[in-house]
This record gives sequence, C-alpha cells and structure tokens, in this order.
Amino acid sequence: MYCVGVDIGGTSIKVGVIDRDGSILKRGSVKTDVAGGQHKIIADIGNLIWSLVDTKDRDFVGIGIGCPGAINSVTGTVDRAYNLNWENVPLAEQLARHINKPIKVSNDANVAALGETMFGVGRMYSNTIFITLGTGVGGGIIIDNKLYEGNESKGAELGHMVLVVDGEQCTCGRRGCMEAYCSASALIRETKNAMTAHPESDMWKFSRTLDDVDGRTAFECSKQGDKAAIEVVDYFVKYLGEGMLNFANIFRPQAIILGGGVCAQGDYLIYKLKNYCKDRNYGFYGTPRFDILTAQLGNDAGMIGAAGLIFADLK
Amino acid sequence: MYCVGVDIGGTSIKVGVIDRDGSILKRGSVKTDVAGGQHKIIADIGNLIWSLVDTKDRDFVGIGIGCPGAINSVTGTVDRAYNLNWENVPLAEQLARHINKPIKVSNDANVAALGETMFGVGRMYSNTIFITLGTGVGGGIIIDNKLYEGNESKGAELGHMVLVVDGEQCTCGRRGCMEAYCSASALIRETKNAMTAHPESDMWKFSRTLDDVDGRTAFECSKQGDKAAIEVVDYFVKYLGEGMLNFANIFRPQAIILGGGVCAQGDYLIYKLKNYCKDRNYGFYGTPRFDILTAQLGNDAGMIGAAGLIFADLK
Repeated sequence: MYCVGVDIGGTSIKVGVIDRDGSILKRGSVKTDVAGGQHKIIADIGNLIWSLVDTKDRDFVGIGIGCPGAINSVTGTVDRAYNLNWENVPLAEQLARHINKPIKVSNDANVAALGETMFGVGRMYSNTIFITLGTGVGGGIIIDNKLYEGNESKGAELGHMVLVVDGEQCTCGRRGCMEAYCSASALIRETKNAMTAHPESDMWKFSRTLDDVDGRTAFECSKQGDKAAIEVVDYFVKYLGEGMLNFANIFRPQAIILGGGVCAQGDYLIYKLKNYCKDRNYGFYGTPRFDILTAQLGNDAGMIGAAGLIFADLK
Repeated sequence: MYCVGVDIGGTSIKVGVIDRDGSILKRGSVKTDVAGGQHKIIADIGNLIWSLVDTKDRDFVGIGIGCPGAINSVTGTVDRAYNLNWENVPLAEQLARHINKPIKVSNDANVAALGETMFGVGRMYSNTIFITLGTGVGGGIIIDNKLYEGNESKGAELGHMVLVVDGEQCTCGRRGCMEAYCSASALIRETKNAMTAHPESDMWKFSRTLDDVDGRTAFECSKQGDKAAIEVVDYFVKYLGEGMLNFANIFRPQAIILGGGVCAQGDYLIYKLKNYCKDRNYGFYGTPRFDILTAQLGNDAGMIGAAGLIFADLK
C-alpha cells in the first residue's frame, strides 16, 4: 500500500511515492509554472503522478497535497495562495478530473507537522505541536495523530499568538505576535540592533556589514562567548520559550517539534530552551513535561506529510 | 436514557439526573465533608445517587463527575485537589465499588465547557473555547463535541497563556498570564488603582471604600459615563480581547463562550468585546469569524456538563 505526496512550492512542485512507513519509494519534481495558471499547474501535477505510478494499481490508495496559503481542507479548495497567485481554486476537484483516487489538501506547514509526527522525529508521539521558525512563524497541531486545523481549516496560526500586548509590530497587523519575536527576521533585527549598540562585538567579524547578518550570526558568536551575541540568543530563547510554555499550558502536548533554519543550531538551541522551560511548566509537580525536538525530515517533510493526510484517515 | 451528573465543589456536592437533552429530571445535594476524608465523600455521593435513581435501570447509562483540581480523566483519578485536600484519589475506581455503571471524571472547568457546548448557549456549535473569569481564569476546549484535555488531562490551562512577557505577576509563578489581567481579581486590582488615582471618580459613590470594590464597580460606573471607570473597563476588554484573538488564531473555533461573574454584564461586555475583536481577526478577508457568547447554564453547568462526559462518548 502506498500514497502519493505532493508538495506545492512557489518555485517547484515535488511529488513522492510514499509507503506506510513514510519511506520515499520514488520521487520527481517539476517547476511551478505560476505564469501558466492553475490549469497548467494542476495538469503538470497529474502528468508527474502518471510518470511515477500506475494509477490503476489498487495498492495506490490516494493523493495528499500540501499547498501554501489559506486552504479549506474539507472541500480541498485553495481559498488564497499569494505566491501562486491563486484564489478560490478547487484543487482537489480539478486534479480528480485527471486521476480517480481520493485526494486531500492541507496547508503546507500543517502537512509538515503531520509528517514529522507520523514519520519523523515525533513518530513515538500522537499529540504534538510543530512550530516552524522561518521568515515568519507557522505551525501545526497534531491531536491523536491527526491534524487539528480549526473552523474551515483556518486555525493553527501559532505564530500569531500575541506574547506582548502592544509589543513589536507584526506583519499581520497586530502587535507583539510570537512571529515578531521568534522568526528568523526578528532574530536578524535583534542581531543588527545589538551590533549597532556594540561595535566591539565579535559579531562584526562573523558578519562584516549589517547586510551580511543572517540567522546564524548571533548563534555562532554566542557559542564563542561573545557577550552581545549571548544576549541576543538569550532574548530569542526567552520569547520562544514563553511561546512554547503557552502552547504547553493550552495543549499539554507530549512534544513540541521545532522546524526551520534556526534548528540547524540543534542541541545548542535545545539545551537552552529546555533550561528555560524546565522550571516554568504550569501546575503542581505531577504536571507532565513536554519533550523539545528539532525536525528531521528537512525539505521532504511536506511531501511525506502530505501522504500522511491519506494514511491518517485509513481505517 | 439518562445519566447522573455529579459536581463536586469545596462546600457542596450537587447530583442531577440528566436526560439526553441536558434537562435536569431530578436533583439533590449534600455538604462536602472535607474533614471526613475521601471515603466519606465518595460514600456520600453513592448514597445520593441511590436516593435519586434505580441503579439497576438499563436506561441509566453512566455517571459523569466534575471535580476541581488536577484530574487524570483517562484513569478517573484526582491527582491533586487542594480544596478537598485530596492527592492521588482513584475517584472513579472507588465509586465503582458502590455502583456498577461506567464512570468518567474530568476537571470542573472542562466539564462546564462541555455542558455549555452540548446543552447550553453553544449547542449549535461543535468547536468552542470556554473561558471562565472568576478569582482565576480557567477554561475548556471542545473539539468535535468532545473535551480536549491534553496529555494526562493536564492541558486547557487557558488562563496561563502569557499575554505580556515580564508583565503582571501571576499566581502560577510566571508573569503576564491572561489570569493576571482578565480575572475578577485583576479587574478589582485595576479598579482600586484607578480609584486611588482619581478621587473625583463616581466609583467612590458606588463603592464607599476600597474594601467595598468588586467586579461590578468599574462596569456599573462605566455605563453611567464615569471616565476613570470607562478606562478600567476598556483595559479589561483589551486584554480579554487579545487573549480571545490568540485562541481564535490557534483554534479558529466557531464560538468563544465566557463564563463567570463578569458575564452578568451581558450585552454591555459582549458589545465591547466584539468591537475590539472585529478588525483584529487574523488572516485574509475570508477567515471565518467567531461568535462571542456568555454562558447560560449558570451554577448547573458543571452538573449538566458532567453528564455530558457520558453522552459525548455514546455511539
């Protein structure tokens, strides 16, 4: 038994044939022809699937798709996806005209969350929170090995939980969202501020100009003991820790899984986060702790997780 | 078909015979004999149930119990309940020695949430967030008409979501929790501060001394146009609104239901909250809104909701 997982990105579409263990049996990709429009893109996906599997095979049980933007996963419609220039595209319905298999669609961050929980670092858990730290902060909620997406699949906007009322301006219009403190963009902002305030910092050796600053600058210099860099990292860890503790108090998950570029910091980040969270877990001494883990499926999380949409619904 | 709902409080225990519509067919109560200890209290509950129903009746399908404190609802154990002076009490197991019916136990706030969604103001919804504003701030999460309680039933601590990192001290040890801004205690604190700062305020007519201040002082004077009182109410509404928007972005529920004393302010509070939240909902124009409602089952919510624990699990 196997599924097809489709990961639609702004520049390329990845398609994988995935077995029930989450292993990739075959894979292919095609450029995302944004200019070609929805019908061209959907036909490209159909052609790629045909080239990889025999669609009449009874062992081929369905197609899962992860797509950026606002998705209605009940109807399989992309309500809005800015980087595809799509609005109200009935993706599942249109692909079903090409291929006679069950088709499910969800948001790309949610699908990555499902992938990491079903087949990645979280496979021993059934209740997890996934937080992806990139340009923005996204996330996914897994309850009993299934995605929880909220009304019209428009929930799990974990990055837009306010941590500081009247705090830093967020891209969403509100102030003080977790995204405004824990995204790579926020980390870079704080790094630049610290470098400007501390001309003596070794961060100036790692990144020669403010334009060279990236998400690694403060972390790498912090590991070498640079005082200003340590302050930047501790500030980042504090807000990320507070956000994680909020999710812990709300969901009491078995684990919180972190994805995105900053996870390349691995154990250094995890150690600091565990340290921050350990004495701040809510409740009496018997309240269960949560594990903190970094994602391990990398760029394949979306494709594998998309297949998980089908496997999760199998009886 | 009917259930028994049990609401264990620090001063009295209420038992009701509840039908599938959530109607109370019969009811009784007994003083909570905290000094008598767990066996006495559990025997009292058993005796009260026997006095109300024929436990051999096949239409009597089970017993649901709402209990304060940290509950493990999988095992039916009260891990810790301060006001009963209980620790590791196997409540379901012990009551089952008296009565041969399925027994379920959950936290009292969670059970009230279930009651309001299944049988109260939220009966047309299946996905809701319940926030109870009392001395503290508690809550419950209903997903697909069932309670979501998290690992070992220790989640849904909605009042302990931090809204202001480094903000007001909370009873839980962290700073800036929703409870530290939206509880009746927080409202009273802000009212007293405003009265001290504004000796000219009409709030001094409503509450002659600071000791007379309660949760109504600022609200009632605000309705009469008192400037300092309006500021207190707007501050309260702002933090409550920010908290509700966080839950909306995380869960995207169909409705958020408010319980607790401040809900007596009814439409005045709801109007202000809807106004605060309406332009701050996350996402593109198509993101679904959430309704804001006040609880309607009052003191019976726990007893009726406890019966809901059994009805929710019926096939």
